[in-house]
Amino acid sequence: MAGNSSDDCNANECVWRFKGNDAMSDAAAVTLRKLFFEMFKNGNLNSGKTILPSVTHSFKPSPQAEEAIVAAVRSGTANSYAPSPGTFNARRAVVDYLNGELPTKLSPEHVYITGGCNQAIEILMDSLSGNPAANILLPRPGYPHYDARAVYSHVEVRKYDLLPERDFEIDLNELEAIADENTVAMILINPNNPCGNVYSYDHLNKVAEMARKLGIMVISDEVYDHVVFGDRPFVPMGMFASIAPVITLGSISKGWVVPGWRIGWIAMNDSIGILKHTGVVQAIEDCLELTPQPSFILQEALRDILEKTPKEYFDKKNKAMRRNVEISCERLKDIPCLSCLKKPESCSYIWVKLDTSQLDDIKNDFDFCTKLVNEESLVLLPGVALGAKNWVRISIGTEESELEEIFERLKGFHARHAISKQAIEVNSHTINQKFVSVT
Amino acid sequence: MAGNSSDDCNANECVWRFKGNDAMSDAAAVTLRKLFFEMFKNGNLNSGKTILPSVTHSFKPSPQAEEAIVAAVRSGTANSYAPSPGTFNARRAVVDYLNGELPTKLSPEHVYITGGCNQAIEILMDSLSGNPAANILLPRPGYPHYDARAVYSHVEVRKYDLLPERDFEIDLNELEAIADENTVAMILINPNNPCGNVYSYDHLNKVAEMARKLGIMVISDEVYDHVVFGDRPFVPMGMFASIAPVITLGSISKGWVVPGWRIGWIAMNDSIGILKHTGVVQAIEDCLELTPQPSFILQEALRDILEKTPKEYFDKKNKAMRRNVEISCERLKDIPCLSCLKKPESCSYIWVKLDTSQLDDIKNDFDFCTKLVNEESLVLLPGVALGAKNWVRISIGTEESELEEIFERLKGFHARHAISKQAIEVNSHTINQKFVSVT
Repeated sequence: MAGNSSDDCNANECVWRFKGNDAMSDAAAVTLRKLFFEMFKNGNLNSGKTILPSVTHSFKPSPQAEEAIVAAVRSGTANSYAPSPGTFNARRAVVDYLNGELPTKLSPEHVYITGGCNQAIEILMDSLSGNPAANILLPRPGYPHYDARAVYSHVEVRKYDLLPERDFEIDLNELEAIADENTVAMILINPNNPCGNVYSYDHLNKVAEMARKLGIMVISDEVYDHVVFGDRPFVPMGMFASIAPVITLGSISKGWVVPGWRIGWIAMNDSIGILKHTGVVQAIEDCLELTPQPSFILQEALRDILEKTPKEYFDKKNKAMRRNVEISCERLKDIPCLSCLKKPESCSYIWVKLDTSQLDDIKNDFDFCTKLVNEESLVLLPGVALGAKNWVRISIGTEESELEEIFERLKGFHARHAISKQAIEVNSHTINQKFVSVT
Repeated sequence: MAGNSSDDCNANECVWRFKGNDAMSDAAAVTLRKLFFEMFKNGNLNSGKTILPSVTHSFKPSPQAEEAIVAAVRSGTANSYAPSPGTFNARRAVVDYLNGELPTKLSPEHVYITGGCNQAIEILMDSLSGNPAANILLPRPGYPHYDARAVYSHVEVRKYDLLPERDFEIDLNELEAIADENTVAMILINPNNPCGNVYSYDHLNKVAEMARKLGIMVISDEVYDHVVFGDRPFVPMGMFASIAPVITLGSISKGWVVPGWRIGWIAMNDSIGILKHTGVVQAIEDCLELTPQPSFILQEALRDILEKTPKEYFDKKNKAMRRNVEISCERLKDIPCLSCLKKPESCSYIWVKLDTSQLDDIKNDFDFCTKLVNEESLVLLPGVALGAKNWVRISIGTEESELEEIFERLKGFHARHAISKQAIEVNSHTINQKFVSVT
């Protein structure tokens, strides 16, 4: 083979035979981080204000969780390699956390420990991508890591809508219509980020019946199961595993306010043995051999984190969230371009519709958020990032004083960009437009 | 679409449209864990002895590393999501750790933080797999996670040999012969697991020249850089980055004896700008958006772990390893079927050739290790797992008393299985056989 000579060619004149895999850029382009980068890239951020929401004013982790880490590292038992599916202690702890009212109880061998829910998503997409024509049903709006990892694993994405006028229930007719013989799974996010709703027992029952009818599994992302503060109780999808197979994803990121710690799980609610029989269990176990393992320290600490954090910790945080929702809805009245169709009863956001017809020079949600960050140093998530154009997600899991400041800034921004009342009337026929979802 | 009815079909009679991705089983089959599973699966382990090597008698992590974790979790600064490439503090800490004598100094943007070296391997294989015909050159013997992830990422593996008779130097002629226009990289493991050698400055210089000639990059796995106890100093491959691009992989797993903690790095020694120009930097950054992030706690602790652990910690451990090597070589004299061709000067293993002609009923290294675990509860790694048939890797990073016990058991096993002296003479023509490498 002809090659580069060692002396007489400048390095830049050499032939280098490798190149980066550019297939990943399509997948990476879908991630939230890329979008935030776009929002900030032309920013001058010269408002002189601190960027909000701040990390320092968000809710704090439970002290018991912190002490669980300290105890794990000092025990000296978390230094060696952990088994690929997770340590027995961690799997047992998750079983005890999840079993509760489940009609078919889980055992440790039904649980796999992951580096947070994101890795659980990655493992599932890889494990289900055996059929090159496979497609998966994702909610719109939804969490873009599902989209990104589907692209990465060459799984086709099909979107079903959540209906704002029906408490963001799933449009099951639409879901049925977009499914076909290559559909392998539907993703359910419950409690729902970004909409803030919690699904009722009856609706989940219908979801399970539909999954059975279509012959697909339900992947239920329940990372917000401990951030529920409305009147409707959270019901785990595993309750319906005798109807259709359910894979439950969870983590401590949201309930314990520690997204950076990276520990979560996959639980196989397989009462009828279908996940084992179809090789899904084996594929997940193979994948776990090949992908990063979560730190043994976190695994060793998991039982104490899940068991020792008192109910009062969650009660206090959820009470504060309920208050924040009330404040937010009240303050939104001063910002007519944003409207909340349903008061959130879970998660830490308020999901609002943006009416650009009330604004002078704002093209869409992305434009709104980009200008807002530049003028007010306030970071909101444009709905387009979650698949819903002209919606906006506002993070409200923060202290009251900061929350007031967030809405002050929004109010100021609105005031500067609002068109005159007369012009609003001219445009009134467009105000009630349905939200346009991006495809 | 015809579907399952909700009532009148038993779940097992329903049509389920998903199945596990069985493509991963080929990759997973190559991993060490699968092999250990095979070794243990028919085991009765009825020797009544504790399994060795034990986890409890291996070397201990540095107390400073443990305290760094405690400080990180208590600081409250490690709870939020970390940036995909790693936190600035962690990247800065790795730069300071690696820069030393490097002629072209690294900056934080040249470093990515990973969940240990395994994740670094995964990211690199994905990032280099853009060309469907790409192949990569791996050492034989070598670490099977490279093989597994190459299979997973559809990168063809080609093996070059390490030469036992030349201190396990790379056979550069063979390496050149197996490369072609689709070769993208070679993996170098230095200090070398399992052989225990450390490559000389001159040999590494030749490796760099060969990589340049072939137009490929060198991926240098330096996870054992702090476990060096022979006379030859460790030289980082980054020293030669002006000749060919070098990607250095590292972690705290081996030096600090904490493989379960999961924190490592990728460092781009790209003095000549080729990795950026060819899109490798971009592909790695895209991949980091899509793969699990190491725990922020570990990232936050990394500077203290790297900086505050005193030299004496490593000196003491390396002195003990040097002693263990002496003991092992001495004890091997009583076990004629195992021979050490080169005294290790790094890592925590002794790599020995197995002569089955001296044994009565042992077919090969895998058979040897399987019987050993069943009869003596002693776990050694068969060379076949690392690509070298009829070699065996013995872990010797343990306390002296346990080390003596390991060799006592080996001696007893040998005595039971050795054929008579007369029979050895009959077989003597095969004793000097070269090792046969598996393909």
